Amino acid sequence: MPLIDLNADLGESFGSWVMGNDSTLMSFINSCNIACGQHAGDPVVMRDTVLLATTRGIQIGAHPGLPDLQGFGRREMAFKPEEVYALMLYQMGALEAICRACHATLHHVKPHGALYHMAARDILLAEAVARAVHDFDKRLILIGLAGSMLVDAGSHFGLTVWKEAFADRRYDDNGHLLPRHTSGALIENIEEAVGQALAIAKGQPIQTANGTPLQIRADTLCVHGDGPHALALAARLAAALR
Amino acid sequence: MPLIDLNADLGESFGSWVMGNDSTLMSFINSCNIACGQHAGDPVVMRDTVLLATTRGIQIGAHPGLPDLQGFGRREMAFKPEEVYALMLYQMGALEAICRACHATLHHVKPHGALYHMAARDILLAEAVARAVHDFDKRLILIGLAGSMLVDAGSHFGLTVWKEAFADRRYDDNGHLLPRHTSGALIENIEEAVGQALAIAKGQPIQTANGTPLQIRADTLCVHGDGPHALALAARLAAALR
Amino acid sequence: MPLIDLNADLGESFGSWVMGNDSTLMSFINSCNIACGQHAGDPVVMRDTVLLATTRGIQIGAHPGLPDLQGFGRREMAFKPEEVYALMLYQMGALEAICRACHATLHHVKPHGALYHMAARDILLAEAVARAVHDFDKRLILIGLAGSMLVDAGSHFGLTVWKEAFADRRYDDNGHLLPRHTSGALIENIEEAVGQALAIAKGQPIQTANGTPLQIRADTLCVHGDGPHALALAARLAAALR
Amino acid sequence: MPLIDLNADLGESFGSWVMGNDSTLMSFINSCNIACGQHAGDPVVMRDTVLLATTRGIQIGAHPGLPDLQGFGRREMAFKPEEVYALMLYQMGALEAICRACHATLHHVKPHGALYHMAARDILLAEAVARAVHDFDKRLILIGLAGSMLVDAGSHFGLTVWKEAFADRRYDDNGHLLPRHTSGALIENIEEAVGQALAIAKGQPIQTANGTPLQIRADTLCVHGDGPHALALAARLAAALR
Repeated sequence: MPLIDLNADLGESFGSWVMGNDSTLMSFINSCNIACGQHAGDPVVMRDTVLLATTRGIQIGAHPGLPDLQGFGRREMAFKPEEVYALMLYQMGALEAICRACHATLHHVKPHGALYHMAARDILLAEAVARAVHDFDKRLILIGLAGSMLVDAGSHFGLTVWKEAFADRRYDDNGHLLPRHTSGALIENIEEAVGQALAIAKGQPIQTANGTPLQIRADTLCVHGDGPHALALAARLAAALR
Repeated sequence: MPLIDLNADLGESFGSWVMGNDSTLMSFINSCNIACGQHAGDPVVMRDTVLLATTRGIQIGAHPGLPDLQGFGRREMAFKPEEVYALMLYQMGALEAICRACHATLHHVKPHGALYHMAARDILLAEAVARAVHDFDKRLILIGLAGSMLVDAGSHFGLTVWKEAFADRRYDDNGHLLPRHTSGALIENIEEAVGQALAIAKGQPIQTANGTPLQIRADTLCVHGDGPHALALAARLAAALR
Repeated sequence: MPLIDLNADLGESFGSWVMGNDSTLMSFINSCNIACGQHAGDPVVMRDTVLLATTRGIQIGAHPGLPDLQGFGRREMAFKPEEVYALMLYQMGALEAICRACHATLHHVKPHGALYHMAARDILLAEAVARAVHDFDKRLILIGLAGSMLVDAGSHFGLTVWKEAFADRRYDDNGHLLPRHTSGALIENIEEAVGQALAIAKGQPIQTANGTPLQIRADTLCVHGDGPHALALAARLAAALR
Repeated sequence: MPLIDLNADLGESFGSWVMGNDSTLMSFINSCNIACGQHAGDPVVMRDTVLLATTRGIQIGAHPGLPDLQGFGRREMAFKPEEVYALMLYQMGALEAICRACHATLHHVKPHGALYHMAARDILLAEAVARAVHDFDKRLILIGLAGSMLVDAGSHFGLTVWKEAFADRRYDDNGHLLPRHTSGALIENIEEAVGQALAIAKGQPIQTANGTPLQIRADTLCVHGDGPHALALAARLAAALR
């Protein structure tokens, strides 16, 4: 067992378009978040990914996103809480049906992309997400950004919440992620990223962008499958945390 | 209780577009088939329709269709059985999740439009539909066209199957529906349609297009919400069958 | 000829879903804005609407929107300027091809919904819209909200710009529309709306929400086809302005 | 100049999903067919591809397809001729607008996937395609399968038609392609494919699946960018034909 859970977003292909290297990435992770057909994934891709994860012994989570294939669910959209609530139910149910037919069990839920970020800072959207998980299956674990409103909302609804942190993203002194497009937001040195991951896993302080020590409490680390060093980092992280 | 179940397709609005008169139609039916977001319906519409059906005591069915909003799921598409299988699971699960959050129960499944017709005459697609229902929840009733391959496939998978017939469509001597666009395919006289419905409900023969008597064995009759006389026919049918 | 141009959004049906009463509304307007398939409209609806507008002698405009059928293009999405630029070209070209095949001519362009509002207040998006119109066909008139950045951007690119105002929306003292969901944002009394329209058409001051007189300079007034009193207001406006 | 035109389908990425290796393939071809947003391609991808083709001196064609992203436009759909007609106009116009803004010129049109095959054997759909090209811009070249109804329809409407043949597909004695999934349908040996291409280019007979000599008259050969040997074959073809 690793010191801390490692999760990755999988099943992000769509129709004839392939994304990521799910099979390889599965060698390094414990939990996966499977796209549910609105920002990526289609029913066939979802089923193939569930079957693969089951074979490999990876815990399966739903990864619901905004209905924006062209933007891969990364463009924020002005959704109302009741729209988010119904959208969450729709996608969790779709994946759960596929799991059931594959004799697999849904383990957790983690919103994707813009939905994840919107639910991190807007309490009404955070509550819509958490309420949807609660009303669908309150035994499911909700994964949200450590320090975010989604974590608070999940707790408020009595859910088990896993706080998520990142090995290769830099934090500011308030424990927020530096925006992705600002300079220094990404930790490109693999050993530095592994160091941050180990610190988080052991409950030790990391260094913020300012060099200040800061403790990030987290239950799971997110591993990426794309980018030039992604698989190398994933492999190093998996080895270091075991 | 009516002599025979009356079902109708509901929840066919999408976003800002409204279709049908669900609330009125619910006065006349026992069972409804709710669109699941691929040919019509969106998560908010689905939830509103489930809540309305629950309030009105109507049995709720999933009404999965082909992913073709522009064609309303009525244009046949060359789907493979494994695509149909996964597509069925996806939509049944999505609606079931919404039912669960509304404290409602899914009662049956009836494919929509082109999928209904493709599964009526292609045994591989029929088996994909039936297998999806079986693998998702084998207690669900599968509704298929009386005399079709979908009925056979449902029985083969051990499902309870309801054979569907039509009050206002004319049959040929083999018990097949006259194609919708041929002359005389629609029974436009309300009393004649009510007569056909009563005959089917009582197990008596109807008159085919040729005037031959023919017995149609059916468990449910489909009622439409659109068209000039649809609501009037639905009201008369409901009254006549009670 | 009316004192001021009257325009309306048409062609907002999609597949089997009908929206609006285009034929009736065409009796009252000079210019129409036809949805281009991304937020509403499909190729067949676009062609039918172009043919109808041509028959009725209505000037045809493109009404490009965000690719969000479910939200009818009314939900703001985080689009980058280069995405807006390409999206505008795509939709203008699609409609222009249909016009050409119908022997009709494209007269103007007016962004729809969220795109209209985003381009009203974000200068980079406004410039992307204006540049797309310029690069596509600089003889096209660009319609933007009076007082908005889109008007400025259109002028900057050398386009003929029509400033748009509203008969039935209340303005604040800075000439901005009161947000649609605030109390008093809509002028529900038809005669009051006609009065505001006549004042704008004649270059006379209107009364803002505070009761302050304010002159709105505009070249065209927007007429709606939906809502309980929309057609009645459109008819009264058309009569009053002639 | 090569003995015969070589064309390839490009711009088949969508949003975050990348497909093909357009830049490399452009080294070997004269003409490209750019997806128009319905089966693949989005406005940004279309613009990037037009710019790249212009830089590389490749002739640009529209590659309109059925509106089925999930099926990549390869699943046949029951479209009516008037739907095909409007769909063609929509996509040709969208790409033409992007070309115009990039100071590029549209050179030809070739339907994609299921639309290509449906228009090859259904005269009403073939006429809808040809009529759309004619009504949009009758100077455009229409590319259709050699020996197909689309070629006849294009000629009937007075268009310049380019007959398309394949280097790596085997023909039957009637000059029809062996269905893709039958044994021997693909010529996997590169030199054999080059031989077939050279024969077609020189107006010499090829060998059918039965070993019968048969002359295929064609104006352009289709080159693929995917598959294990695709780029190698494209390179060899380009070299052999110069």
